[in-house]
Amino acid sequence: MPEQSELTIQGWGPPPSHPGGGDADTPAAVLPRPARRFLTRELGWTPRATPPVPVGDIRVAASRLPEAARQAFTELLGAGEVSEDRDARLRRTGGKSYLDLLRRRSGDASDAPDAVLTPGTTEEVAAVLRLCSEHGVVAVPFGGGTSVVGGLSGSDADDRPVVAVDLGRMSSVRSVDVHSSLVTVGPGMRGPALEEALARDGLTLGHLPQSWEYATLGGYAATRSAGQSSTGVGRFDDLVAGLTLATPAGVLQLGHPPASAAGPDLLGLALGSEGTLGVITELTLRVRPRPRGRHYEGWSFRTWAAGLATLQQLARHDLLPDVVRLSDADESRATLLMASGVGARAVRGSLRARRRGQGCLLVVGWEGIPSVARARRRAASSLLRDGGAVRLGGGVGRAWVHGRFSAPYLRDRLLDQGLLVETLETAATWTALPTVYDAVRAALRGALDRGGRHPLVMTHLSHGYPTGASLYVTVLADRDDALPIQQWLGAKRAATDALLAAGGTLTHHHAVGTDHRPWLAQEAGPLGISLLRAVKQQLDPTGVCNPGVLLPD
Amino acid sequence: MPEQSELTIQGWGPPPSHPGGGDADTPAAVLPRPARRFLTRELGWTPRATPPVPVGDIRVAASRLPEAARQAFTELLGAGEVSEDRDARLRRTGGKSYLDLLRRRSGDASDAPDAVLTPGTTEEVAAVLRLCSEHGVVAVPFGGGTSVVGGLSGSDADDRPVVAVDLGRMSSVRSVDVHSSLVTVGPGMRGPALEEALARDGLTLGHLPQSWEYATLGGYAATRSAGQSSTGVGRFDDLVAGLTLATPAGVLQLGHPPASAAGPDLLGLALGSEGTLGVITELTLRVRPRPRGRHYEGWSFRTWAAGLATLQQLARHDLLPDVVRLSDADESRATLLMASGVGARAVRGSLRARRRGQGCLLVVGWEGIPSVARARRRAASSLLRDGGAVRLGGGVGRAWVHGRFSAPYLRDRLLDQGLLVETLETAATWTALPTVYDAVRAALRGALDRGGRHPLVMTHLSHGYPTGASLYVTVLADRDDALPIQQWLGAKRAATDALLAAGGTLTHHHAVGTDHRPWLAQEAGPLGISLLRAVKQQLDPTGVCNPGVLLPD
Repeated sequence: MPEQSELTIQGWGPPPSHPGGGDADTPAAVLPRPARRFLTRELGWTPRATPPVPVGDIRVAASRLPEAARQAFTELLGAGEVSEDRDARLRRTGGKSYLDLLRRRSGDASDAPDAVLTPGTTEEVAAVLRLCSEHGVVAVPFGGGTSVVGGLSGSDADDRPVVAVDLGRMSSVRSVDVHSSLVTVGPGMRGPALEEALARDGLTLGHLPQSWEYATLGGYAATRSAGQSSTGVGRFDDLVAGLTLATPAGVLQLGHPPASAAGPDLLGLALGSEGTLGVITELTLRVRPRPRGRHYEGWSFRTWAAGLATLQQLARHDLLPDVVRLSDADESRATLLMASGVGARAVRGSLRARRRGQGCLLVVGWEGIPSVARARRRAASSLLRDGGAVRLGGGVGRAWVHGRFSAPYLRDRLLDQGLLVETLETAATWTALPTVYDAVRAALRGALDRGGRHPLVMTHLSHGYPTGASLYVTVLADRDDALPIQQWLGAKRAATDALLAAGGTLTHHHAVGTDHRPWLAQEAGPLGISLLRAVKQQLDPTGVCNPGVLLPD
Repeated sequence: MPEQSELTIQGWGPPPSHPGGGDADTPAAVLPRPARRFLTRELGWTPRATPPVPVGDIRVAASRLPEAARQAFTELLGAGEVSEDRDARLRRTGGKSYLDLLRRRSGDASDAPDAVLTPGTTEEVAAVLRLCSEHGVVAVPFGGGTSVVGGLSGSDADDRPVVAVDLGRMSSVRSVDVHSSLVTVGPGMRGPALEEALARDGLTLGHLPQSWEYATLGGYAATRSAGQSSTGVGRFDDLVAGLTLATPAGVLQLGHPPASAAGPDLLGLALGSEGTLGVITELTLRVRPRPRGRHYEGWSFRTWAAGLATLQQLARHDLLPDVVRLSDADESRATLLMASGVGARAVRGSLRARRRGQGCLLVVGWEGIPSVARARRRAASSLLRDGGAVRLGGGVGRAWVHGRFSAPYLRDRLLDQGLLVETLETAATWTALPTVYDAVRAALRGALDRGGRHPLVMTHLSHGYPTGASLYVTVLADRDDALPIQQWLGAKRAATDALLAAGGTLTHHHAVGTDHRPWLAQEAGPLGISLLRAVKQQLDPTGVCNPGVLLPD
């Protein structure tokens, strides 16, 4: 079983045994007062205690694993690596979307796997998948359990039993090739452990999504993740030089660093396959020297439109900072009002003095060789000033760095108090971006306005490319206590319809999962879907690999 | 029919009607004297006139296109767009590999297509492919005709009739989105025409392979090309934001700029598909502002090993120049000895004076925002000096820029004089690169040594990445006049076996074609091949799309 600390069952953060940890024994912390005041006014929200049911009261059905399958798995892996224990199953139930948390908080774990398997090698994983095929058992790969799109739903049209294939035992560095800037790792390894190991050679991976503390490297590949420094470091796709995919039909070795023209790129089929083609059992990743310098700072634009136009200029000249994050007016206002402390007050004061109280915050970060980073920063700063931005200094940047992984913890506190809290994301070309932004906001507001209560829709541009950028949207609203799931499903449907119609992609870095399945055909086209099905049919002819996600029924 | 000038039938360069052009009316120009002297001594070569047969004597069989298919194509496209004319067919016969040229020069065009079709739209191409399926006719897409791996062989295990689908009519810019740095073009467009069109908006694509004057944009995508500035600009793969693929099963729209996580990347299946899945009918490409500054210069390393080690240092710090080209001692010596003129003499003198007459030349090029390019150049220069390189100045750089597209023209002159001339390429990680280099050289020498005559094997590193680099090998030898094709096939087989065994990729940017087919399963694995077959079966169930290439029989 994994040695890494596990996420709490009903939210984010370490389990009760862990110092400072969560679950039922921690009282629902009260929100900071300025945040509470701001949200009450903004949303028409009535703060109220809506705590989760005790973990012991969560309903988990008896395992449906057939005896023959249990015997076969036990023979293959040993009895210690096949568990039908309630806690083990509960900890591999679903992911961490708002819908997942609503279900778990209300005591529903009807999506729990029937058993948890913990294979230790590629060969064992391949053998597990063959046995799954033989016994008609669905396999859901389990890494960090941090999916926010229902990627671990385990649902199956044929209602077959489900095993979670936990990769926690395959979580070590297998080799480092310093010369070629490559590291080979197990899929269950997490970012912090990898960074610690790489630091010994003066290296870093540099992939830092918000889920960094708990998500696994295999999960990043399976979902096409993007980190907070993705503008500089690249999407996770760009960091994968090779991988091993165990499938029911056999084992694929994919990728040939540094590059190849020997036919179409099959590695790209494994990236984003979300467990539907098999299980990623090894990854070779591109690493780099730890940057000698890092510089984060804040800027302010008077308007969102000015911010977008200026970042587009930076992007076309390849001058985007390694980290770039432009908040719209609603997010900027909320960030400043909800922040407490002397630093936040100083920034608020400084902005008011410059008549930018209603402006848009930009956080930028520069990394790498100091002389080159400085030249890039100077050239970019000049374009930022040309675009009307004013510099706020390093405090804003440091504050962002300090809080970069904190949002999911805060979400638990907001859920405790009767709020709807969810995020969604998309990407579009620079030309389409303003339309996509307007369309998503209008859709969410239309869907979530009810009886004098309004959602707060906060957006930031989170990843920049020469051809466009991604938008990350956070939604807060007073929760509909009677029908909370339906409330969000309606809003999500409206937002997704709107962003696709405006030219956005279904997802920029959260993946498809269960939640985006109904729309995939709209983006990939019927022939594209048939192509994905043909690939799946070849590798997983009995359809046991995570059938509940990605491909529509 | 295309308005762009066509390549000569038996070699490179413009046709006879074109100023300065080639074919039979141009006398085989004599090699510059220093080159002749050097090669005679080096190879044990006897210069002799081995001119091609007159174009009129090339044997072209009668068209085998069935009447019913001819009628169907004519009804679809109009009579003017369906040609069984000898010259039209001859101009779409094969590509420009050494083997292609040997055949065409000896009067063999047994691989000529039976007819040439010139559709004008995506819909027409899709309809052509449906008709091909119905009538059992093989379709070979024809762009620039510059394949050097037998990509246009048209060979078919079932010996069905073959049509060349010429894309010359689909060769215009369709739209430019300056904001999003995207241009949408027809697949038959060539680099020079695109650069001319983009220059009006101050933009450039920047993809400059050696075949730039004649190759087409669709061809770059179908073969996963890499340009001479690929270290800075990126491989062609990196420049394709979207494309349209017409297949017998329908039309696929692929790619969603700037980035997406909505399932596996299907665009990557079209890149490198070499016409086996259908025909690329439109491309959306990432463009960038024309660089305000360009700086090329030469350096010299004492040894190949020192050069590799130093470039690896640059690579891991992301300090590789936009253009980077390190020649080994054999290529450096040949370059300096074969060059004529005052500049070359000066460089030779300067190197001798510094005791680097036997060294390795490095050409580097810096582009982009001047202040940033300068910072990168300074940081890189410091590492180059640390690695023992001495700077030779701008002359070497300018000479390289001047001659960057000239090699294929020179090849024709060498072929006229009894020489074997061919190139091959691969890529490997920095760690594997020295072994791959040694293995390929030894294999080529072993295969081509005969009776006191030796090949000249010249290598340069042509594209650098953080994780490795590509090697480009040029081979010169005295031609075996009796069995020239077998002579090269033996050498190619030895080199390919050797580079794969040492960890190189089958091809870094020339593609698979016919020539590399026998080895693809070794690189992709049997399950990888079955995956490619499943994809092909879905899009091209009757196997009419370029069956002679990529996938082994």
